[in-house]
Amino acid sequence: MKTVVFPGSFDPVTLGHIDLITRASKLAERVVIAVAVNTSKRTLFNLNERCDLLSEATAHLSGIEVIPFSGLLADFAKEHNAQALIRGIRGTTDADYELQLAQVNKALNSELETILLPANAATGFISSTVVKEVFKHNGDIDPFAPPCVKQALLIKHSENS
Amino acid sequence: MKTVVFPGSFDPVTLGHIDLITRASKLAERVVIAVAVNTSKRTLFNLNERCDLLSEATAHLSGIEVIPFSGLLADFAKEHNAQALIRGIRGTTDADYELQLAQVNKALNSELETILLPANAATGFISSTVVKEVFKHNGDIDPFAPPCVKQALLIKHSENS
Amino acid sequence: MKTVVFPGSFDPVTLGHIDLITRASKLAERVVIAVAVNTSKRTLFNLNERCDLLSEATAHLSGIEVIPFSGLLADFAKEHNAQALIRGIRGTTDADYELQLAQVNKALNSELETILLPANAATGFISSTVVKEVFKHNGDIDPFAPPCVKQALLIKHSENS
Amino acid sequence: MKTVVFPGSFDPVTLGHIDLITRASKLAERVVIAVAVNTSKRTLFNLNERCDLLSEATAHLSGIEVIPFSGLLADFAKEHNAQALIRGIRGTTDADYELQLAQVNKALNSELETILLPANAATGFISSTVVKEVFKHNGDIDPFAPPCVKQALLIKHSENS
Amino acid sequence: MKTVVFPGSFDPVTLGHIDLITRASKLAERVVIAVAVNTSKRTLFNLNERCDLLSEATAHLSGIEVIPFSGLLADFAKEHNAQALIRGIRGTTDADYELQLAQVNKALNSELETILLPANAATGFISSTVVKEVFKHNGDIDPFAPPCVKQALLIKHSENS
Amino acid sequence: MKTVVFPGSFDPVTLGHIDLITRASKLAERVVIAVAVNTSKRTLFNLNERCDLLSEATAHLSGIEVIPFSGLLADFAKEHNAQALIRGIRGTTDADYELQLAQVNKALNSELETILLPANAATGFISSTVVKEVFKHNGDIDPFAPPCVKQALLIKHSENS
Repeated sequence: MKTVVFPGSFDPVTLGHIDLITRASKLAERVVIAVAVNTSKRTLFNLNERCDLLSEATAHLSGIEVIPFSGLLADFAKEHNAQALIRGIRGTTDADYELQLAQVNKALNSELETILLPANAATGFISSTVVKEVFKHNGDIDPFAPPCVKQALLIKHSENS
Repeated sequence: MKTVVFPGSFDPVTLGHIDLITRASKLAERVVIAVAVNTSKRTLFNLNERCDLLSEATAHLSGIEVIPFSGLLADFAKEHNAQALIRGIRGTTDADYELQLAQVNKALNSELETILLPANAATGFISSTVVKEVFKHNGDIDPFAPPCVKQALLIKHSENS
Repeated sequence: MKTVVFPGSFDPVTLGHIDLITRASKLAERVVIAVAVNTSKRTLFNLNERCDLLSEATAHLSGIEVIPFSGLLADFAKEHNAQALIRGIRGTTDADYELQLAQVNKALNSELETILLPANAATGFISSTVVKEVFKHNGDIDPFAPPCVKQALLIKHSENS
Repeated sequence: MKTVVFPGSFDPVTLGHIDLITRASKLAERVVIAVAVNTSKRTLFNLNERCDLLSEATAHLSGIEVIPFSGLLADFAKEHNAQALIRGIRGTTDADYELQLAQVNKALNSELETILLPANAATGFISSTVVKEVFKHNGDIDPFAPPCVKQALLIKHSENS
Repeated sequence: MKTVVFPGSFDPVTLGHIDLITRASKLAERVVIAVAVNTSKRTLFNLNERCDLLSEATAHLSGIEVIPFSGLLADFAKEHNAQALIRGIRGTTDADYELQLAQVNKALNSELETILLPANAATGFISSTVVKEVFKHNGDIDPFAPPCVKQALLIKHSENS
Repeated sequence: MKTVVFPGSFDPVTLGHIDLITRASKLAERVVIAVAVNTSKRTLFNLNERCDLLSEATAHLSGIEVIPFSGLLADFAKEHNAQALIRGIRGTTDADYELQLAQVNKALNSELETILLPANAATGFISSTVVKEVFKHNGDIDPFAPPCVKQALLIKHSENS
């Protein structure tokens, strides 16, 4: 596979994301990480910060591109000649949602495949919300997020206090 | 088991909650009902009101403590020497969510167990939202919530009209 | 069956809704489409617009009534002598939710049945949110919504720009 | 609805079955209980015994017919001019299976509807296997099966000892 | 991706299998269809027949190899230098099972990826069991299986009568 | 809690079982491991072998008793004055099944609680079937089962060859 797209809000990137991005980079030559410009919820990190953290956290991997996206995922994938969307699933609620999303994207772009990767048991439970909650309450986020995220949270915290 | 923690928003306490608290009180000498100070949604009852209703609704049970909590549940459990978190599950969507939450708490506090109690078929479907919706539309909430909640809703209603 | 109720927000009506309404009209002489006055989220179309679109989109079917509803669904069904609620399910997350909702309605109105219709594989994945998202980003909504909805979205779009 | 079909092995009929049959008889004038001639597992009761127990257990209901069936359910429904299949669902594993079965039947008989009824919380957990297991180990099956089944099990037990 | 493995019993191959094999052939240069020698249930078609039907049904696709396999899937994948296992999922019960299977295979062969492809809504519900049941009862299997399977079933039927 | 019961076939005991038994031994003074005498499938190890392996694998834990059981689990728990059944859940299919089983046991023994423990992410995927399959095909079962099981499988293997 030439190109795959791995979409998300990444507010911020977690070790769960990095596990999936690493595995995706073994399946395709080029992994486009599509960072959602508009998210249904207010983000802690703005678009640039989210993209920078992703670039830094994946600098050790080859073939990774971090690109903001708004609009339809099916159109974005077409613009970037992507063959497939990569999505991680942790449990059946994720699977149920992804099966429906895959049908929407197939209806919008019949050439676009959806690849679901089973989340890694060791990092699958990690979400951006968990990282922010644990940090907010002085918990140790090392098991959940890369070092650059910890730095960024500390800076963000000092800016806001 | 010495101490278990039963966390929630309890806005307000329902007969479903009381079923689980009663069963928890048979499993451990001390049941700490952890009332969330900060909830993602605006609550109808404030923290004190929620705590008072819980105390009144469980007055007939021994070994019950009602304590507000903010911060990480894993830390709260450690502070109160709790051996386990008690959570009720009604169906698979609950189970999927609780399996992931249990992994987060295990990562934050490896000594903390998570005990999932199958909801009682007769009260499992009751949620605080159902109680408030039924009351708001003049429905009978007796099958769903203890008498003290009905009183509190009537007072709240008269205050707000 | 004389009368069934098919409740929802219908913001706007989709081909998935129309599939279920058509099938419901074969099961009962009278299908009351109950349009929720109050929805937890702000709607794109107001109540009248939503009702008008439903009437237009189901004009080809007999025995259809479009009626706004607020309050408890169990009470609305009683007022309209409905024997059953019709609900569509696409996957297990829907099923889990509907099983609990059915218990609430059974507790409020023991005569009211809940009929779950398996979503049609070809239209089951369509939601009002998908229709609005695809339209917003200039996608083709013909496979997802009836023509009258496309018109209404174009008018709404021109009003808002 | 004129006619609906409620299929199963009924080895033997349980209070869970009777709850669904009773509810089906309120939705349609005629409920054909289709008793599977061939079942993947050896049955405790033969076909006649299973049919007789069903007839006896539903004698108090009107419009009920008990008819053995082999072959495709979609064909059987067509032969008996049935508009819909009635199936009960207790949880999401049932729902997942029934959604797929509904698609198979829709592909074989596009006029045939599938109606899923949420199992009653009080009897939903009862299966024929539970009835036989509890009886085998001298448990009380009154909460699980009608009196005629208890009689039949006692007779079967004395025949086999 | 160079090589992926698509395992199964294929007793017989269905249009659901062919949809997944076709999609897999777009993701990798070489798709090894691993046909299980030992299956938990007695098969209708023996190993050679199952392999021949697969070869015939996928003759129009390039890069397809049909190879019997026994032993551990993780070992088979290693022997054939496969980067990933391809598995289709139709609903959450499949997803739950595949998530656990993926963990077993990851424990046995850490280099082996598991790719889950959402079943196509139009063919996802088709299983080998459905094909055999429909044929057994003189139903039309054209919507479910390729022509060569129909031929083989007719021959098998005449041999057995 | 004085006594809990942890039931199963244990054919053979795995590291997943031992994780749950270890955690149960922290919740109650006495953990009765109930080894099913009659299992729906033929077992590789007979009853005594299964019990011996359990005793050896849990020798390092205090308060563990290994007792064969046949009949109803609800009755067995009553005979041994157990307050709760301990069951592990790995995903939603387990949860769906356990919620129904808990209702059956509650109907048979209203004093008996069911405690569901979320499977440990690192060992949750391990089943007795996986252990036997991996051993049969010369895989390494050290990550899946205790040393005594490996010994027993080697002896069983030599006896059978």
